[in-house]
Amino acid sequence: MTIREQAYQMKLEAPVLAGLSDETRNRALLAVADALAGNAQDIFAANAEDVSAAKEQGVSTQVIKRLIFNEAKLKDVTAGIRCMVDLPDPLGQLQLARELDEGLVLKRVTCPIGVIGVIFEARPDALIQISSLCIKSGNAAVLKGGKETARTNKVLFDIIYKAVTEAGLPSGCLFLAQSHAEIDELLSCDGAVDLLIPRGSNKFVRYIMDHTNIPVMGHADGICHIYVDDEYDQEMALNIITDAKTQYPVACNAAETLLVNKNAAPQLLPALKERMAAVNVKLVGTKEAAGWLSCEVIEDGEAFRHEYGDLILAVKVVPDLKAAVEHINRYGSHHTDSIITKNDENAAYFMRMVDSAGVYRNCSTRFADGFRYGFGAEVGISTGKLHARGPVGLEGLVTYRYELHGSGQIVGDYASGKASFHFKDL
Amino acid sequence: MTIREQAYQMKLEAPVLAGLSDETRNRALLAVADALAGNAQDIFAANAEDVSAAKEQGVSTQVIKRLIFNEAKLKDVTAGIRCMVDLPDPLGQLQLARELDEGLVLKRVTCPIGVIGVIFEARPDALIQISSLCIKSGNAAVLKGGKETARTNKVLFDIIYKAVTEAGLPSGCLFLAQSHAEIDELLSCDGAVDLLIPRGSNKFVRYIMDHTNIPVMGHADGICHIYVDDEYDQEMALNIITDAKTQYPVACNAAETLLVNKNAAPQLLPALKERMAAVNVKLVGTKEAAGWLSCEVIEDGEAFRHEYGDLILAVKVVPDLKAAVEHINRYGSHHTDSIITKNDENAAYFMRMVDSAGVYRNCSTRFADGFRYGFGAEVGISTGKLHARGPVGLEGLVTYRYELHGSGQIVGDYASGKASFHFKDL
Repeated sequence: MTIREQAYQMKLEAPVLAGLSDETRNRALLAVADALAGNAQDIFAANAEDVSAAKEQGVSTQVIKRLIFNEAKLKDVTAGIRCMVDLPDPLGQLQLARELDEGLVLKRVTCPIGVIGVIFEARPDALIQISSLCIKSGNAAVLKGGKETARTNKVLFDIIYKAVTEAGLPSGCLFLAQSHAEIDELLSCDGAVDLLIPRGSNKFVRYIMDHTNIPVMGHADGICHIYVDDEYDQEMALNIITDAKTQYPVACNAAETLLVNKNAAPQLLPALKERMAAVNVKLVGTKEAAGWLSCEVIEDGEAFRHEYGDLILAVKVVPDLKAAVEHINRYGSHHTDSIITKNDENAAYFMRMVDSAGVYRNCSTRFADGFRYGFGAEVGISTGKLHARGPVGLEGLVTYRYELHGSGQIVGDYASGKASFHFKDL
Repeated sequence: MTIREQAYQMKLEAPVLAGLSDETRNRALLAVADALAGNAQDIFAANAEDVSAAKEQGVSTQVIKRLIFNEAKLKDVTAGIRCMVDLPDPLGQLQLARELDEGLVLKRVTCPIGVIGVIFEARPDALIQISSLCIKSGNAAVLKGGKETARTNKVLFDIIYKAVTEAGLPSGCLFLAQSHAEIDELLSCDGAVDLLIPRGSNKFVRYIMDHTNIPVMGHADGICHIYVDDEYDQEMALNIITDAKTQYPVACNAAETLLVNKNAAPQLLPALKERMAAVNVKLVGTKEAAGWLSCEVIEDGEAFRHEYGDLILAVKVVPDLKAAVEHINRYGSHHTDSIITKNDENAAYFMRMVDSAGVYRNCSTRFADGFRYGFGAEVGISTGKLHARGPVGLEGLVTYRYELHGSGQIVGDYASGKASFHFKDL
């Protein structure tokens, strides 16, 4: 079967999966956690082969770090799955119940989206996490992993698939696409695949967004800003900048740009220069900023539309809060931006005017994360504005349907005035 | 300014519009209703020119009917605007408030989507309705109407724009694109336009969906089904079929296909033949159905993936409920489908298994409409599953942002174990 035929078959079977009880889906999740723990050695063996092959091929250490799947990661993912079991059932939630007229009741009820295509680069833990979220939310998933972890993915998938089908999930609940050419085929499966979730590098996600008509949930760029206002706490500012830049520089929620109010610059920038030197962060900045920082000069404007993903911070001095907001809305990626200020009014203005999924005051942009928001698990972070925005948990994997329960009603009677609606919420 | 420059400018100004109070937005809406009523003669005069030009060009009566804007339509739209004023503010709604740790509070607050591109064929009332919904929800809108109503649209837009800007809305709140070539330019404004809402023929909507990377909310096809189960009320079935087919045959929620359980066929189909003849509905059907109906035979399968939008009904006899559901999921458009049955279990199965925005029991598919659902106003009906599904009201025009209010917190402290989250919902 081609991946397209497989996806269409899954689409037709998806309502069966959607109709299973929360109990069955939770039983399947527990079976997955047990099976992963019980087959740990097989997983580690396959992963060791992937890792040594990657090293031979000269894959960067940064990528190697991501594709390693060890005891600690296994413990994390199985603990995550067990937590997910305890989360409330996202399906069958009644969002609206309204009597339109006597004997005519409208209900809005949550249901799965259907078939989700999950495409991830070298992240075996993403395979487990997103499959588990799909199982909990009653969605079928077509999984396509990167070739660097092909052996690990195959072992993980076989363990998960066996566990869930034995626990009562239908055969079309999960499918692992193994050939590389299948990515483009998967991208063309509109009508069968309802949503794509890509996890990987900016370039990878951008490629997917540009080559499909299927809705994509996620983000390509993470150009996050910190703006230091004129009334601010110097030590707090330096700590937050350091954390947002260095705590995990490759993360999408790491800060790339520091905007500094012109009144704060004389005090902040000399101290920043010292602090960044101490943590090996290279500074670049506009001419004015470079005057304080004695760093490499970059042009104002488009040069700031850049995600370094590294220990490099771009600095710009701005005349005021308004200019900072305009810079963020123009050159940012609408991900997460933070203001450091003591001024309540300025903070409120920043939060209202910055057009991003996360607008923060006096804290690090690195908090943008499903676990840190208390969602238990996350599918990813969305910089889109439709459906789900910011860190996305189970809620992002469900939609709803309208049920209308009648007793013979026809619209003609309401159009003619013979009958009329009375709209009573139940 | 090109439409692209205009859209980018509106995008930068959108947060100002978003930040206005509900009071200001409502004042603008009332000003629009008053101004439309006060300038009725200018509107009707422009519309009369459009209508006579369309008649001269031999435009079909069906389209002419849509482009007429008379006293009755004016009364409807102004009444609609006044109702909208009374609807609760969709913005600034607190959807989540959670203390992550002491002095670190997460809030999820509704906000406008940003810049909406509204593209409509010959429907002047759609211009008014969708602009009003955008005003109420704090979104900027780029409006692009069909050439058949260019004069009416220009007059309506000028009246609305003057009213809202005098009432305090920023100059970038609304823009009317007047040249036909601008449609393709608008479709390429990713990064400036956040959402497209097309209203018009299937072909028109399909074109838009196929030629843009901007998310599109709406539907191209409306292939709605009625399935008559084996335990059913004959008179109810005939009434519902008649209403769903004939009450407004061009509507997207009119029924196109009747599926009949094989046990119901001998009783239902002869009566259906008579009833449909009485209301001038032409029947077509599979060989088995045609045996009862003495009608034109169509092939089973792909021939059913067709929206007639006319007094034509396609009929198929199915062996059972399961086959009916499979037919609907395979050949339908996931819009609205209804089962006629006395059997509660079968109704529940149908509602669970049919993968459509609306799943109905014992009533007409024509109820799929924002006004009939009690939403007050509608942007359109979405057959997509993300963001909004089915009839879409104000709720479909808002998104949310996450605000994080801190007091100097950094992620490093939570990663090292120096601090920990306590997640208290407020």
